[in-house]
Amino acid sequence: MDKDLQTRILNAVDARFDAQTQFLAELTAHPSTRGNEQSAQDFMASELGERGYKVDRWEIDVDDIRHMPGFSPVIGNYEEAVNVVGAHESASKKGRSLILNGHIDVVPEGPHDMWDTPPYDPRVDDGWMYGRGAGDMKAGLASNLFALDAIRECGFAPAADVYFQSVVEEECTGNGALACLQRGYRADAALIPEPFAETLVTAQVGVLWFQVHLQGLPTHVAYAGSGANAIEAAVPLIAALHEMEARWNTDQAKHPQFGHVHHPLNLNIGKIEGGDWTSSVPAWCVFDVRMGLFPGQDIDAAKAEIETVLTDAAQKNDFLRNNMPRVIYNGFEAEGYALAEDDSDTAKQAISALELAHGAVTGGQLDKVSITATTDARFFGLYADTPALVYGPKAEAIHGFNERVDLESVRRVTQATALFIAQWCQLESL
Amino acid sequence: MDKDLQTRILNAVDARFDAQTQFLAELTAHPSTRGNEQSAQDFMASELGERGYKVDRWEIDVDDIRHMPGFSPVIGNYEEAVNVVGAHESASKKGRSLILNGHIDVVPEGPHDMWDTPPYDPRVDDGWMYGRGAGDMKAGLASNLFALDAIRECGFAPAADVYFQSVVEEECTGNGALACLQRGYRADAALIPEPFAETLVTAQVGVLWFQVHLQGLPTHVAYAGSGANAIEAAVPLIAALHEMEARWNTDQAKHPQFGHVHHPLNLNIGKIEGGDWTSSVPAWCVFDVRMGLFPGQDIDAAKAEIETVLTDAAQKNDFLRNNMPRVIYNGFEAEGYALAEDDSDTAKQAISALELAHGAVTGGQLDKVSITATTDARFFGLYADTPALVYGPKAEAIHGFNERVDLESVRRVTQATALFIAQWCQLESL
Repeated sequence: MDKDLQTRILNAVDARFDAQTQFLAELTAHPSTRGNEQSAQDFMASELGERGYKVDRWEIDVDDIRHMPGFSPVIGNYEEAVNVVGAHESASKKGRSLILNGHIDVVPEGPHDMWDTPPYDPRVDDGWMYGRGAGDMKAGLASNLFALDAIRECGFAPAADVYFQSVVEEECTGNGALACLQRGYRADAALIPEPFAETLVTAQVGVLWFQVHLQGLPTHVAYAGSGANAIEAAVPLIAALHEMEARWNTDQAKHPQFGHVHHPLNLNIGKIEGGDWTSSVPAWCVFDVRMGLFPGQDIDAAKAEIETVLTDAAQKNDFLRNNMPRVIYNGFEAEGYALAEDDSDTAKQAISALELAHGAVTGGQLDKVSITATTDARFFGLYADTPALVYGPKAEAIHGFNERVDLESVRRVTQATALFIAQWCQLESL
Repeated sequence: MDKDLQTRILNAVDARFDAQTQFLAELTAHPSTRGNEQSAQDFMASELGERGYKVDRWEIDVDDIRHMPGFSPVIGNYEEAVNVVGAHESASKKGRSLILNGHIDVVPEGPHDMWDTPPYDPRVDDGWMYGRGAGDMKAGLASNLFALDAIRECGFAPAADVYFQSVVEEECTGNGALACLQRGYRADAALIPEPFAETLVTAQVGVLWFQVHLQGLPTHVAYAGSGANAIEAAVPLIAALHEMEARWNTDQAKHPQFGHVHHPLNLNIGKIEGGDWTSSVPAWCVFDVRMGLFPGQDIDAAKAEIETVLTDAAQKNDFLRNNMPRVIYNGFEAEGYALAEDDSDTAKQAISALELAHGAVTGGQLDKVSITATTDARFFGLYADTPALVYGPKAEAIHGFNERVDLESVRRVTQATALFIAQWCQLESL
């Protein structure tokens, strides 16, 4: 790329970075937990519309996507699960098309008293912006949008179609990204600025969510011996699941892309609830589990093994033997995905374009990482033959308290993204 | 007692037993869980008023009772916690006065799909009435009221003051009964028809409720190793509490009234809740514990031991050492009580009057039991020098699903209660 143009693009990001920070704060102020994304999506649609993108805003219909590979089951209805896509249609179409994807949903913020300042009242302190979702991944959405802005500031537009996607459901199913595929959005590559500290994600694990429901015979605690405690019955099942987790993480079992990762597949007991009254022996308990999977690991086989593990553990327990646990799948059935295994020229070219852009901004090499989480990249990579680059800013305490994102890192990622767009899509005059 | 009068009283109970069953069904239909007792108390007040009793209906003010022995701490406010007392004032006052006590509150019914029929839509099947609270203890309230009715049907009234009490809060603090003491209600004896199968309760355990709050460092499950799971941190604490429970139940530790009881002091993990999101390592978990105490066991010493047990267990755990559990007392601080240890003549006379009444109805001896639950009897016995007789019908699955009470047992208890009143209070003409 022309050095002068490169400098102009970098400067254009700098020039609008205060506005970008302000935009990020405004977006983070929307408490867009699952089911509550509408106001944030309204904001995104309005910002895209003001910039002249063709805005497509639609409610996901589960019936449209449930037959598709990569679909994850949902409990309850999907009313008001709204995706927003802003399309740039190139006049010349001489370059390669691109999807800029990000998710608008954030995970619950937890007890507010564990935050130093309110989670949806973002603040900047010492170069970090604090707030639920600031890092995961509203900074990424801001980066995608302001990277495009910087190109326009320089008097250009991408010389290929670009689809800016703001999707829901990344944090529990990925059905938002899947619905974009169903609606026909395709491009030569996808970029997803998830907060992995300016590294390129070349492998990600799969994720399975399930609930274990326990149910038993309740009684007054005065007769505790004749009832059995559904809460305490969870303990041996959790232990058995951790034994399975250990087996899946042995060196022999590891996927090559995760050979160097100490413990790639994490099992998490994320939620528990049980019982109605302190002096009643609890008759029910439900706990929610997240388990990682390797790329290529079969979802149905994983489910079967989990069910066997639970059944075997239950058989060894007097209470559980007569009250077998019930497993309900209510979220992620996400396969793993490894960009590193994509041998296509397109993938190689996309990676190399990003390496160039990253190097131009940082002066350093682009590190490659295998991550122990999932992202929406799998939909593009596995089900649409589209290499998906996950590359975003540095953030801390995502899913935790005092989540924060490094603003200088956001600036660099925005610059690298703008250069990547210019390289990948090429440019045409406005 | 005159045999003829005795027969007339028994027959009077029989004559009104259909009405009593109807009354019990109507009372059971009120879902009077904690905070929702008002409609049931309206019904009780109206029934007492119609019968000509002087009705006292008041809202409990915590400030009136918090200084009194036997008070249990409450979390939240006490608005609309209403007690109802109906007073019979004797003209002659030649007999001994009596409190007929029962509680209107019921424990939560739990998931409705675990009931064969709706918990607040009582039904009679094969001699049992089913419904939440039918046994514990609306049948007892009905028995108290219709025992008085039977005496009146025979043309008499008790020849001493009788206070019919319908109290709240028995199932979590006992502060309803305590508020009756504070309001000045006193009598020579108290009768509480809790559902212990026509036996006389001569000893009951104390009960302590506490919550254990765990709080930690949450994180995205991708980095589970750097967070720590507040839900799983509960497991070693629960194990340590069960070790304490075992120590308290050794033969050497047992109170003499419980020497023959296999496991008198039950520790129950009654409720648990933790975590906000399946893919976030949970930062918080709260579990609710009920622990029994022997009569004479000091509440403060018990609390101190519980706290030491939890602290010691936490010290052995990497996560807990840096996130010490917090104990909150939010309900029962109930001392044990043993009527069997009351050497007063009044107690002996009350027991012997009940033995006579029970024998006249059943032809059998009155069995004495030590129970592993608490009742409001402790307030009268420990803090008002009033022997409290717990004697009520046979019920099953109290605090469980398909709770039911044996209607023929209710009839017998009502008859025995009417004879006991006649004996204890003596009678005067209407």
